[in-house]
Amino acid sequence: MMEKKLFLTFSIILNLVFTVYILCNNSTTWSPRWTNRAAAEAEDAASVSCSGHGRAYVDGLGVLDGNKPPCECNNCYTGKDCSVHVSDCPVDANSGDPLFLEPFWMRHAEKSAVLVSGWHRMSYRYKGGSFVSEELEKVIRKLHKVVGNAVTDNRFILFGTGSTQLLAAAAHALSLSNSSSSSPARLLASVPFYALYKEQAEFFDSTRLKFEGDTSAWKKSKRNDNNTQVIEIVTSPNNPDGKMKRAVLEGPNVKTIHDYAYNWPYFSPITHQTDEDLSLFSLSKITGHAGSRFGWALVKDKNVYEKMKRYVTLSSMGVSRTTQLYGLQLLKVVVGDGGEEIFHFGYETLKKRWETLNKIFSTSTRFSLQTIKPEYCNYFKKVKDFTPSYAWVKCERLEDTNCYETFRAAKITGRDGKVFGSEPEERFVRLSLIRAQDDFDQLVGLLKKLVPEEAVGVDLI
Amino acid sequence: MMEKKLFLTFSIILNLVFTVYILCNNSTTWSPRWTNRAAAEAEDAASVSCSGHGRAYVDGLGVLDGNKPPCECNNCYTGKDCSVHVSDCPVDANSGDPLFLEPFWMRHAEKSAVLVSGWHRMSYRYKGGSFVSEELEKVIRKLHKVVGNAVTDNRFILFGTGSTQLLAAAAHALSLSNSSSSSPARLLASVPFYALYKEQAEFFDSTRLKFEGDTSAWKKSKRNDNNTQVIEIVTSPNNPDGKMKRAVLEGPNVKTIHDYAYNWPYFSPITHQTDEDLSLFSLSKITGHAGSRFGWALVKDKNVYEKMKRYVTLSSMGVSRTTQLYGLQLLKVVVGDGGEEIFHFGYETLKKRWETLNKIFSTSTRFSLQTIKPEYCNYFKKVKDFTPSYAWVKCERLEDTNCYETFRAAKITGRDGKVFGSEPEERFVRLSLIRAQDDFDQLVGLLKKLVPEEAVGVDLI
Repeated sequence: MMEKKLFLTFSIILNLVFTVYILCNNSTTWSPRWTNRAAAEAEDAASVSCSGHGRAYVDGLGVLDGNKPPCECNNCYTGKDCSVHVSDCPVDANSGDPLFLEPFWMRHAEKSAVLVSGWHRMSYRYKGGSFVSEELEKVIRKLHKVVGNAVTDNRFILFGTGSTQLLAAAAHALSLSNSSSSSPARLLASVPFYALYKEQAEFFDSTRLKFEGDTSAWKKSKRNDNNTQVIEIVTSPNNPDGKMKRAVLEGPNVKTIHDYAYNWPYFSPITHQTDEDLSLFSLSKITGHAGSRFGWALVKDKNVYEKMKRYVTLSSMGVSRTTQLYGLQLLKVVVGDGGEEIFHFGYETLKKRWETLNKIFSTSTRFSLQTIKPEYCNYFKKVKDFTPSYAWVKCERLEDTNCYETFRAAKITGRDGKVFGSEPEERFVRLSLIRAQDDFDQLVGLLKKLVPEEAVGVDLI
Repeated sequence: MMEKKLFLTFSIILNLVFTVYILCNNSTTWSPRWTNRAAAEAEDAASVSCSGHGRAYVDGLGVLDGNKPPCECNNCYTGKDCSVHVSDCPVDANSGDPLFLEPFWMRHAEKSAVLVSGWHRMSYRYKGGSFVSEELEKVIRKLHKVVGNAVTDNRFILFGTGSTQLLAAAAHALSLSNSSSSSPARLLASVPFYALYKEQAEFFDSTRLKFEGDTSAWKKSKRNDNNTQVIEIVTSPNNPDGKMKRAVLEGPNVKTIHDYAYNWPYFSPITHQTDEDLSLFSLSKITGHAGSRFGWALVKDKNVYEKMKRYVTLSSMGVSRTTQLYGLQLLKVVVGDGGEEIFHFGYETLKKRWETLNKIFSTSTRFSLQTIKPEYCNYFKKVKDFTPSYAWVKCERLEDTNCYETFRAAKITGRDGKVFGSEPEERFVRLSLIRAQDDFDQLVGLLKKLVPEEAVGVDLI
């Protein structure tokens, strides 16, 4: 009898507990509504297993037909779940795809996700008439402050569809201030330089701008008359070789564009707060989102800023608002802990890659890597090695007349040195070190065959 | 005793029911995980009440400091929740902000939302090496098929950061095929034309392209020598006047760009399936997402396509992958029901606006509106009125030498007719009819004052 009573009491209490649980659960947890579908779709895609050698995206092939997004496998992996390694597979070490940061974002899935509503900022302009998200501008200023790599006070910030667009905008804007109307402004850079500088100027073919080539050659030439308007692009750290650079040309006829795409603690010690007239940065090399096509310029002179703004307006009416929203969220994550986690993660990743690389090349007499002395990094607050995004490999042997082809023969596709400037650069090839871990591992595999094998070759001769 | 037994049994059964409920509830409803934060944030912003006269966006001012996003009020509304109407407020009827479609997207919040993961397509390129989402390309072909406004078979599709970028790319690409290297290709359009054509060509100032102005003037001029390379831009329906247009120039030296931004059932009957060499479309005027900066080109000739692609590559390395994902989702909603709902909604909205407008202007001798005869629409399968995006208002009185200023004095900011071409256009002003309902309502309010008032004025003279 007593037992039954106890049992009944227990049962009633349990019922009460269940009731409270259900009530609380329904009222305190967030109950998803119109965001359901999109969230579920994203979770579904993210949960597709690609064996760690690929990923599925919500906009993958076949989703329009209602299919689950398929795995898109890393190079040299195949199969439905990317579990099959392709043997004897050539390696892609060409483009500067910054996938080395992808694991960071996967680890911070919750913080970095963005839900875009179907009516997100449909207008051409933000409130107030600008093409620029004020919050994104704010987080960019904060980022530079946190890293200590650029002065943003008294600077206008302009957004572009990648720093690619801003490069063209900057060169064009500066060429418009050319007083001598008879002769176009000359665009120059120091060899080896990023090929886009030349390609843009030559393809867009403005009456006011002409690509002239190497700064040093110009300095020595007779045409360097202190009269011709000159625009020098300074890339620091430099693409391809990762070296810190300063302007070579000077004078009242010289204007300078500083391309600081790589000026982040991953790639080089932050030695000082840059304070230039016109500098360019890119989301691609700070968060790794090359595909989002977002860059920004810090511009001192209002006149130049206005001309660049006009360029961006006439070229694309500013940058996609969806992309600005995404950029805001990503940079919010970066600055959230003062860059602590992402910069450590990225730097350590590249440091390990450089250690592996240096080891492979250390015994070689046939190939050499660039070396840059460590410097004190104001961000990490200690002396740090340079860990550039690219290996700038020199073929030392005279018979290796085309370094790029030498590597191609060993199934490694880098970027041909001659793309970066003049003749002697044919002795160089650029290997990208910032790609996905799989790419790097495959590169190492092939380099381990090529480099020692050929070193032995030298010994035999 | 019996009662107690019954009670116990009941209690136990209830326990079981609760247990099953909780288990089922946890296993069958979708349980949100890493998408939680983003989804909640979006729902929060969407739930901010702005009295139907504004909206809050997730990236609104102050969100970085942890504030709830504020209401961004429509023109002439103010206050924390946009509930205060500003009396005597000037009206903005200038830009072609396609906010008339915003209510459609709010109504389809669930279908149209997109969740972007922090690692979404970080790479420069899609699998296969292109800058273009294959699914987005597919949905665009489907869209044209559904609407019947353009042949897409045997056409290359190129994406741009708005049709703005593609316009520049197209003009540049066609100018490169100019055989007579001594003289630049001439860019022409029929007055009245969209100002950007002129502004782009003049600002970018390529050695190979020169804006020449009106096609008819050119046709009559001596320089029309069948030798000079000519590029004609045909805008149909035309911006500003909404009329259907055909190419004016012909000959072996003539190339044509068809700007079909407004060639959708909202604005004009779909009279035929266009089948041109090079035509341009814009997300802005089909879904209303001007802010997303997305457009596409249909290109017949591979050579021209390759040159345009090179332009877009050198200018911005393609279009943001985030934006492509968003565009895919939006167009998926559009074609989901064959365009049924969005085109009906958009057309009916504009039809009502035109009815209101026609009524106001019907008695006026001072101002007149463009008139275009109804035509059979292949999409709606019936004869339909033209409902252009802009009213192209003519000031008929001689003393109204500047039509734009006449409207400005009545607190209506339109777009000055002279922006669209030559001198007589000063007698015109363009009023945008595709903006938010609030903008239109305010426009109507002020027009109701201006138009009849001045009609009386005429009677008195």
